[in-house]
Parts: sequence; structure tokens; C-alpha cells
Amino acid sequence: MAERVFTERGIAGSSIAHVAQALGMSPANVFKHFHSKVALADAICQRSIENMAAQLQALNVEEPAPDRLRSVAHQLMAMHLAAFKTAPYMIEMLLILSETEMASGARYGEMIEGLFAGLIRHGIESNIYYCRDIPARSRAVAAAFVTILHPVFLVRTPMEELETRCDEIVELVNIALQNPLAK
Amino acid sequence: MAERVFTERGIAGSSIAHVAQALGMSPANVFKHFHSKVALADAICQRSIENMAAQLQALNVEEPAPDRLRSVAHQLMAMHLAAFKTAPYMIEMLLILSETEMASGARYGEMIEGLFAGLIRHGIESNIYYCRDIPARSRAVAAAFVTILHPVFLVRTPMEELETRCDEIVELVNIALQNPLAK
Repeated sequence: MAERVFTERGIAGSSIAHVAQALGMSPANVFKHFHSKVALADAICQRSIENMAAQLQALNVEEPAPDRLRSVAHQLMAMHLAAFKTAPYMIEMLLILSETEMASGARYGEMIEGLFAGLIRHGIESNIYYCRDIPARSRAVAAAFVTILHPVFLVRTPMEELETRCDEIVELVNIALQNPLAK
Repeated sequence: MAERVFTERGIAGSSIAHVAQALGMSPANVFKHFHSKVALADAICQRSIENMAAQLQALNVEEPAPDRLRSVAHQLMAMHLAAFKTAPYMIEMLLILSETEMASGARYGEMIEGLFAGLIRHGIESNIYYCRDIPARSRAVAAAFVTILHPVFLVRTPMEELETRCDEIVELVNIALQNPLAK
């Protein structure tokens, strides 16, 4: 119900009282479970992240590391576009709430970094990628892909431009990871 | 005067009439030069971009390409931090106005890409960097640095974390540009 209220009124225009009213409950009843609007938004985000994580794990890409990176990047972009389309209030959330307020934001960052760490590890095992510091490299790779994942850049850019941008970043990252001098 | 009004009231809370009032002029007089609040904000941004471009050109870094990239990235980050600190309304501008409304936004992107293209070209000339498609690579490099330049990521992150992140992205980009297989 909170998702529906947030979608209709925006987060800035919503309160716990609105959600309670839509549920035909007293605000105290909702407050018992969520102590603030932010906590409620965070819980919704967390659920959406878990959905996305499940979809990512289902991605069974049987390709060499560089092609796998390309596939995952494009699928990740498509998932983000779909998420912001069905739940536009998530964009508002990302813009108006600070990261410290949103525990789910930090967890999400870690999930994306973990995804790239897995791809890098797979590439190293097949002797295609080279990397001495996987966590640091995964953080940099996650940062490099931000303009095809974060709504600030995603929602304003035409699809064709996004696809090209995604390919250009994949190319940069693949060339970095395939550099034998980084062995 | 528009800068002062925007800083005090925020852009969303400002109008051409407020600026005119602060100047002791009629709104018509301001409208004659700037047809909208967005056009006025765009002109301010453009001036700020020109300032930054002048500062960037004054950066006379006499170092090998990889160190030069590191120096420029850190200086660029420091400049952005300073700009958003002295003119916080620029952050609001970046968030509330779409890129199509802001001509200066596109020009700024091109300036940053041009800066990286120059660094890449210098590295190729000294046989340290390898790259077949400089414009595409410059776009990807500019995208890779977004999380240390865009206020959405910049203003919420502690300085120490920003410095580390900047170094990790520099490392990723340098390893990509130094890959002899990209020759």
C-alpha cells in the first residue's frame, strides 16, 4: 500500500498517516512497524533489491568473461530502467534521501560490487582477466557503470545513447581487466 | 545578483521577478535579456564552466601520462567540490532541470571529454597509452569518473572515501589505457 501511496503522491507529499488511511488503519498501527516514512521507503527498496538480486542470480551466462561482462551490464541497465519505470518514487527516494538515511542504498552498492567481483574472479580463473586487488577493482568497475545504472543519468538519456554508452564502458573495463601487465 | 537570489531562495523558490526586485528593476527589463529562469541559470552555469576551463588549462602538469591522469582527476574533483560549496544552487540546478533544458550541461560534458581526450593523446604520443578510438574511449573515461565529479555522489561522501575512490578509478583507467593489446 505504501508503494501505491508513494507512486500517487510522491514521497515528499506522503506521510505514514496517508498510508494508514489507505489501509483503513490508525497511524499508530503503521508506526508500530515503521518508525518513519524513511524506514518504510527503505523496506520497500530492500524488497526491490532482493527481487533484483534474484533476477541477477538467475542470469546464467555461459560465455567467456568479456562477453559475460557485456551481457550482465546490458541486463543490469535494462533491469534498472524497468524498476524506475514501474516505481518512479524510487528515483525521488534516491535524490531526496541521503545515503546514511537509507541502509538499503549501502547494501545495494555492495551487491553490485559483489556481482562485478564474481565476473572478475571468473575471468581470472579462465586466464582472460588479470587483477591483483579484486575488491578495489570491483569498486572502480561499479563506479564506472554508474551512468547506465543511476536514474539521474538513466531517465533522461535516449535508449540508443544508453546502449552505446554501455558498450563503450564495457570496452574500457574489458581492456583494463585483460591487461596482462596487471598480472 | 541572480547568483545571490538563487543561493538565498533556491532555484525552485526563485523567479525572474525576485531577481528584478533585488536589482531594483522591472521584471520586463530582466526578461529582455533572459527569457526564463532556466536561461538565467544556464548563463550562470556557462560562466562557471568557462572559469573551470581556464583553471584546467592553467594546470601545467609535466608528468608521464599515468601520473598526469591522476593529478588531473584529483584536481578536477577538488574544483567540483569547491564549486558546489560556493554555489550550492548548482546542485539543485543539476537535479531539477533536465539536460535538454540546460545547454551548458551538454557543453560541460564535451569539455570534460575533451580534457580526457587530450590526456589520452599525450599518452599515445609518448608510447605509454594505446587506443584506437579516442572519442569513444574519452566518453567512457569521463563516465567512469562521474562518481567523483557529480554532486549526487560528491556531496554525501566523506573526503577520504572520495580520494580512495578517485585513485581506484584512475588505476582502472590507467590499466585500460596502458594495455598494449589495444594498440
